Amino acid sequence: MTSHDVASLAGVSRSAVSRTFTPDASVSEKTRRKVLAAAQKLGYQPNVIARSLITRQSRLIGLIMGEWENPFYTTMLRGFTERLGERDYRVMLLASRTAGDVEAAMRMLMQYRVDGMVLVSASPPAAAAADYARGGGRLVLVNREADGVPATSIVSDAARDGREIGRRLIAGGYARIALARGDATLPSGVLRTEALREAIAASGRARIVIDRSGTLGYAAGRAFGNEVMALPEPPDAIVCSTDMTAIGVLDAVRIDRALQVPRQVGVVGFGDIPASGWASHDLTTIRLPLERMIDAAVATVIDEGRPATGPRRIVVEGEVVVRSTLRDAPSRG
Amino acid sequence: MTSHDVASLAGVSRSAVSRTFTPDASVSEKTRRKVLAAAQKLGYQPNVIARSLITRQSRLIGLIMGEWENPFYTTMLRGFTERLGERDYRVMLLASRTAGDVEAAMRMLMQYRVDGMVLVSASPPAAAAADYARGGGRLVLVNREADGVPATSIVSDAARDGREIGRRLIAGGYARIALARGDATLPSGVLRTEALREAIAASGRARIVIDRSGTLGYAAGRAFGNEVMALPEPPDAIVCSTDMTAIGVLDAVRIDRALQVPRQVGVVGFGDIPASGWASHDLTTIRLPLERMIDAAVATVIDEGRPATGPRRIVVEGEVVVRSTLRDAPSRG
Repeated sequence: MTSHDVASLAGVSRSAVSRTFTPDASVSEKTRRKVLAAAQKLGYQPNVIARSLITRQSRLIGLIMGEWENPFYTTMLRGFTERLGERDYRVMLLASRTAGDVEAAMRMLMQYRVDGMVLVSASPPAAAAADYARGGGRLVLVNREADGVPATSIVSDAARDGREIGRRLIAGGYARIALARGDATLPSGVLRTEALREAIAASGRARIVIDRSGTLGYAAGRAFGNEVMALPEPPDAIVCSTDMTAIGVLDAVRIDRALQVPRQVGVVGFGDIPASGWASHDLTTIRLPLERMIDAAVATVIDEGRPATGPRRIVVEGEVVVRSTLRDAPSRG
Repeated sequence: MTSHDVASLAGVSRSAVSRTFTPDASVSEKTRRKVLAAAQKLGYQPNVIARSLITRQSRLIGLIMGEWENPFYTTMLRGFTERLGERDYRVMLLASRTAGDVEAAMRMLMQYRVDGMVLVSASPPAAAAADYARGGGRLVLVNREADGVPATSIVSDAARDGREIGRRLIAGGYARIALARGDATLPSGVLRTEALREAIAASGRARIVIDRSGTLGYAAGRAFGNEVMALPEPPDAIVCSTDMTAIGVLDAVRIDRALQVPRQVGVVGFGDIPASGWASHDLTTIRLPLERMIDAAVATVIDEGRPATGPRRIVVEGEVVVRSTLRDAPSRG
């Protein structure tokens, strides 16, 4: 079944068939109807792949997911897919676990001539990013920054988040703080921790007693919570780099060790995943403005009509979601 | 940058360049190395889109997601993406909310000449499915069945699951059962409920006191739990069609109404999402064999070398995950 068959049946030129199936191309309503009727009768589908070779637009956006465990990455994936679909773009999805995976995924997407790429929680190798930019491709990093790479980064204001968490801990009268961090090399985590340390040091009333990396997810959080609460001088507050970790810590503190939250131990997370709002967790956390991050990524990656720009940073602000796992005044107990 | 430039620099024919970048094509190691060196120097990427017009294989698999809320659909999405990537296939991802969306998504994927389609919790319109099958495309439905559609369905054994839940309720001595169901029209839900009803009726010792559709997700589950526990004769067990719903019911029962689970009220879910294993929920549920479902879908959708077959059904068996929300003997309280 080719456009030739459709043209014959409709009694029009092949060019008329082609124009009918090209967005924004000029074709009379009468011709369009004839072509569509013939196409339907023959079960014909235009080949957008062939068309993309002529228009040099694939209308494909590559999406590389470096992290899946955290529910807010799924929210992002869904948001990208739906919003790009509304604008007549399709998502080509690739998973990457390692830097080598990201390189291979980017090279693969270049072969499919994607109009843009979004990397979610994955860092682009500089060479692949440079090659892609040279061809005019747009690269957007979500929750990551990379020095010397021609990409737009969409990140939260980590220093502000760190200061805000520090301020809340001091206001609640917490004095011995434990940190449960994920990947210690991530710039956002480092920035947030630096700001938190400064806020705590400036208070003169609290100190960080444990700063542990590699504690990511429910099971790691629960193990960490049990470990630190068994110390001779346990922390009175635990700051976690994700909500999943914080929920693991909460279960260790409340269920395994039968301690009261927030009176005996305060817990704070990061991200505000749906489960954090469930009555059984009711976790105080920092909410990432996911919708704004999705909007910014979509707007950047499909911004047509102007060339891709050099490195840019789009900073979105989180907000503290006050629930019941952090007290707001010193305990009298 | 074209294959012509690469051929010139490497001192080989254009055909040699093309063969170097075509999987399984014949090319000498010496030529291959020359081509790759020239390609790297020039930053050349082969155009797989152009190649797919010749090979008639896009190496694209379309994935249509009809449901995102339930975490196990994300697990599936990740599994498909990773396993198809390992076999050198790419995923084109589309989201659909309505039957019209599914139709449009399928037509779109046909235009990209995808080698196969997987519909996750979405039902294919018969006309689109027939058109796709006519072109030799493979269609796989996960968690859905559709009469008269040339597709392979991968489903769990709903009748067995229903009987098993009924058996556990009777063994626990529960007598007044409430059902919290999602979409009342889904064949799997209907089958499961029928089997559950039969098992309960056969016992002569229990009955279904409420059967409510449209209660899906945490908030709906929590509202339902609060509503039914306020009745003059409340249920002593609540059966939910998803784990998220069951966790909402648990929070209503335990936190909002301060009742004891499983002594005063038993709760059972379906799916075994990660949160169900958290100490704070510890939900008894039916585990879907996600890995087997993903394997079956991948094997079916990329099965090359033989023509697409007619309708087929692949049934996988779930298993009861016994945790603490359902007692296993009648209460003495």
